[in-house]
Amino acid sequence: MAEKYVDIDTLKYLLYDIHNLEDLLVRDRFQDHDKESLDMFIDSVKEFADRELFPYVKEMDENPAYHKDGKVFVHDQVKTMMYKGGEMGLISAPFNYEDGGMQIPFLSHTAATYILDAANNHLPGYAGLTQGAAELIIHFANKELNQTYVPNMLSGQWGGTMCLTEPQAGSSLSDIVTKATPTQDGYYKISGQKIFISGGDNNFTENVVHLVLARIEGAPKGTKGISLFVVPKNRPSSDGALEFNDVTTVADFQKMGQRGYCTTHLGFGDADDCKGWIVGEPNEGLKYMFLMMNSARIAVGRGASAIACAAYHASLQYANERPQGRKLSSDGKKNPAEKQALIIEHPDVRRMLLMQKSVVEGSMSLVFLAAKYYDIIETATSPEEKEKYNLLLEMIIPIVKTYPSEAGSASVNNGLQVLGGYGFCADFILQQYYRDIRISALYEGTTGIQSQDLLGRKVTMNNGKALQLLSAEIMTTIKAASAIDELQPYANTLGAKLKLTEKVLSHLMPHAMKGDYERYLADASIFMEFFSLILMSWTWLDLGVHATKAAGSDGTYSKEFYESKIHTMKYFFTYELPKTTGLSEILLNTESITIKKETEPVM
Amino acid sequence: MAEKYVDIDTLKYLLYDIHNLEDLLVRDRFQDHDKESLDMFIDSVKEFADRELFPYVKEMDENPAYHKDGKVFVHDQVKTMMYKGGEMGLISAPFNYEDGGMQIPFLSHTAATYILDAANNHLPGYAGLTQGAAELIIHFANKELNQTYVPNMLSGQWGGTMCLTEPQAGSSLSDIVTKATPTQDGYYKISGQKIFISGGDNNFTENVVHLVLARIEGAPKGTKGISLFVVPKNRPSSDGALEFNDVTTVADFQKMGQRGYCTTHLGFGDADDCKGWIVGEPNEGLKYMFLMMNSARIAVGRGASAIACAAYHASLQYANERPQGRKLSSDGKKNPAEKQALIIEHPDVRRMLLMQKSVVEGSMSLVFLAAKYYDIIETATSPEEKEKYNLLLEMIIPIVKTYPSEAGSASVNNGLQVLGGYGFCADFILQQYYRDIRISALYEGTTGIQSQDLLGRKVTMNNGKALQLLSAEIMTTIKAASAIDELQPYANTLGAKLKLTEKVLSHLMPHAMKGDYERYLADASIFMEFFSLILMSWTWLDLGVHATKAAGSDGTYSKEFYESKIHTMKYFFTYELPKTTGLSEILLNTESITIKKETEPVM
Repeated sequence: MAEKYVDIDTLKYLLYDIHNLEDLLVRDRFQDHDKESLDMFIDSVKEFADRELFPYVKEMDENPAYHKDGKVFVHDQVKTMMYKGGEMGLISAPFNYEDGGMQIPFLSHTAATYILDAANNHLPGYAGLTQGAAELIIHFANKELNQTYVPNMLSGQWGGTMCLTEPQAGSSLSDIVTKATPTQDGYYKISGQKIFISGGDNNFTENVVHLVLARIEGAPKGTKGISLFVVPKNRPSSDGALEFNDVTTVADFQKMGQRGYCTTHLGFGDADDCKGWIVGEPNEGLKYMFLMMNSARIAVGRGASAIACAAYHASLQYANERPQGRKLSSDGKKNPAEKQALIIEHPDVRRMLLMQKSVVEGSMSLVFLAAKYYDIIETATSPEEKEKYNLLLEMIIPIVKTYPSEAGSASVNNGLQVLGGYGFCADFILQQYYRDIRISALYEGTTGIQSQDLLGRKVTMNNGKALQLLSAEIMTTIKAASAIDELQPYANTLGAKLKLTEKVLSHLMPHAMKGDYERYLADASIFMEFFSLILMSWTWLDLGVHATKAAGSDGTYSKEFYESKIHTMKYFFTYELPKTTGLSEILLNTESITIKKETEPVM
Repeated sequence: MAEKYVDIDTLKYLLYDIHNLEDLLVRDRFQDHDKESLDMFIDSVKEFADRELFPYVKEMDENPAYHKDGKVFVHDQVKTMMYKGGEMGLISAPFNYEDGGMQIPFLSHTAATYILDAANNHLPGYAGLTQGAAELIIHFANKELNQTYVPNMLSGQWGGTMCLTEPQAGSSLSDIVTKATPTQDGYYKISGQKIFISGGDNNFTENVVHLVLARIEGAPKGTKGISLFVVPKNRPSSDGALEFNDVTTVADFQKMGQRGYCTTHLGFGDADDCKGWIVGEPNEGLKYMFLMMNSARIAVGRGASAIACAAYHASLQYANERPQGRKLSSDGKKNPAEKQALIIEHPDVRRMLLMQKSVVEGSMSLVFLAAKYYDIIETATSPEEKEKYNLLLEMIIPIVKTYPSEAGSASVNNGLQVLGGYGFCADFILQQYYRDIRISALYEGTTGIQSQDLLGRKVTMNNGKALQLLSAEIMTTIKAASAIDELQPYANTLGAKLKLTEKVLSHLMPHAMKGDYERYLADASIFMEFFSLILMSWTWLDLGVHATKAAGSDGTYSKEFYESKIHTMKYFFTYELPKTTGLSEILLNTESITIKKETEPVM
């Protein structure tokens, strides 16, 4: 049985030493917090996760959420997550005091939720979507809606969801047809179907508050005609009692993974009695929703990295305990009389473990960086600061969502392989993590959509200013690394990769200039893979700079701890970054293999 | 619901036009067969698979094999596979007439079984392992054992298995401890435990015949002291009745995928009454087993390619039917008033489909090539011919097993992604294929073990003669392609990649020369990935040469059919082969990152 799901030393090292949480605490918003109190928060979350989340992760897979008699039944531990988690402030923590929150930095919140995700990825989503729904109400709805819904949501008494996807539209939100009909009484009548609604129903909370995208009759076609509504499962009447609001649970999708986290199909207004209250202005719904999208995408990246993290520790434990085979002697043979080696001593197993470590810790650092940018934006003291970090966050967000999802999936794949045949067996948890993490590349915009966002919008945004700002950040790290002998070669390599990025973009840009966006974006997913590796090398070089300095002085952690970070950095530069050479070759191709021609051979 | 699982035109094109089945038919062994009769065999297998295998593939996943009261219960369709398949000759077909077979080419058998695997990968293994066990008895056991067991096995009345793995030894066969104690009566008493025994038990056949590796007391340590035994679940007494042979089914491993194909834990001799009969000579067991290993590894590659094939067709159908989103217009925007596009029109979806097509058809061709080599070896008319094709087969076998498993898994991953959120849902079959195929990289020697075999034994075998022979075959194709204008650039590229292989090997070889085998083999898995892509490019160039010629004349198939092969070849050279540039950079590294040092930082 796996015993460890996260290395809390590494998490704290990234939080305090690499991303300098304390730097944020001088800001007004966070003035009531100090490192000690926030560290106690992390410790209490870890203790909660050890006790209430991790022990149930396998059980929740084996007893998935299910739909019966129009209701979704979830594992009892969902109640604990919402009620006890709510009591502990796990839902309200990052919110404003005035909304019942604690105003802790989003960075602290992200680190805490990383622990929850790593302990049991089937549970934190229930709280996370409730936060997202509450945030939309707080930011854009009127005071009455806020007072009616937010307190019960942040305490964990009521759940919350985001209702975007419809059966006929999928990722194409411009094709949403859910209808909102205005009435004289200040509310709208809602009718339509929504699918893939995570946390959409359960058998214990008295209410679930849905934030629903719908179209008011006569609204413009496409994304410009979409409005946002609060649509509770049960509507509070004036005396505070709840009455059924005609939101029916049609089904719970049964999935390959993350089976304890329900994914529902909801029907609104089957009996023509579903009331919705508009959030903000008509036709602004998608804009509102997208203001929340960055935190949602950070959450997906965080969750994926955390699943990969749990898988890494499970396979590391196995590799440290399982004897099998022998090391090769100098005649290339193995001596059967010799004691068996632990499998962690075999280079191929070490390679698979180092790959996992580099993906897990690198992506954890990237996710924390995004959270820190988020905090700086929220508390910016000048428009320039706000703009700068906003551009930086926008630039990295598609990678923050995608790299942990895609490389994390490959990382869990290696973890499974470390266990050999046992990795495929239900008795071990690796096969579950392999299934669980696979959703990440689909959630909140697939990898294809993130890649189009990265190349199509972020790279070109403000005439390329976001990319320039990011490059400048990377150059700062390169400069710091160049000053350290041991790191100079790695600094040079990363510098060369930035130049290679320019070359690739100069090759692609002319397509966009000519208005051939289809060709410009055809290989966006390859560019995503290419640029992610470069961004992650930056993350690792940054870690390398810090660890090298700390290893030479009296750091917080042991010398071995710092050396393992430097070693993993070297792994990344030696085994992962070189892949960009091949990927750049693909990106520099002059063919249009994937674009449909008039006369196209059969597929 | 997916309707197609294999493109029979492509299968026949590879069988008859690319690998020229008819060339084999001039050989004595196959003289009773002609193309027409063998083609009817393929058609009858397809019809059988349509009717008896494909309709049950999802059901077998949802109702997995299970262990109860010391017995394994399997899906009823296993009976059909064994009994009806046996009647049709599906088990006996490639065997000699004298053993009850039909002496069909292994190539035809491989194509037929490919269809079965693609239709339902949970079933053909029951027949396949029975064949393997029968083959061992035929080749190495005495006549009495042959007469006692083989006829019932080839008719499908009795099952068969291979019992290698033990709990404490895993892949390290030198640590096998199952004991065989000689008696005065010609048999041995067997005692021990075997795990991961596919098809090890069922609730309907009257017998299962296990081929068991065990150690006779006093035998040398390691792999040199392992013998092979026939150990039936029930032993036939002199009057033909069956009596229980003390082989107990301890458990059935529950797995992430291929859940209809049972994977058992067997106990031998718990009541000290388990009899085994030795196959051939004492201490030669592993050698015998390895003589069967090539066909077992071809079977795993075939099965993996076939699962990827079924997944490709399921995702292709979805992409052809599902409207979603719109194509970008020349201002980079999408017009919501326009009709939705089918998702197959989006370049990123086309890229994922082309990747699948290139992996599926390329690996199908590679598997057929291996089968053809196998036939040539079995029917060689001179020692030179036998040696040449033996070396060629040995050289490619680790790739035949590994490329379809690893790239096939990535291919199914793309198939799942094509379906978006639906791909993750149990209602669609992509998630099942994603789980099913994952076993392939573990079966019959993991990817790590195959990679060590490729670089450690095959590349260096007979002073590199196998690699030279393979290079000569590749050069022949390059020469043919160079004579065709359209293909010349691809021929040049492949030529350059052969040179790059030499460079990589010259970099690695000195480690082996110095006796540092650990370092020589440390990156064997990277070399596997690198060289697989080169081998597959050869496969595709070969297809390109044929299709280009056929497209210009009156070929068997439509012009579009040939053009789609050429287009897929171009995809492979543009999107897959370039990855070797990055991989070669990794292989040329001068570090030893993955080798455990004396003072090793914590992982």
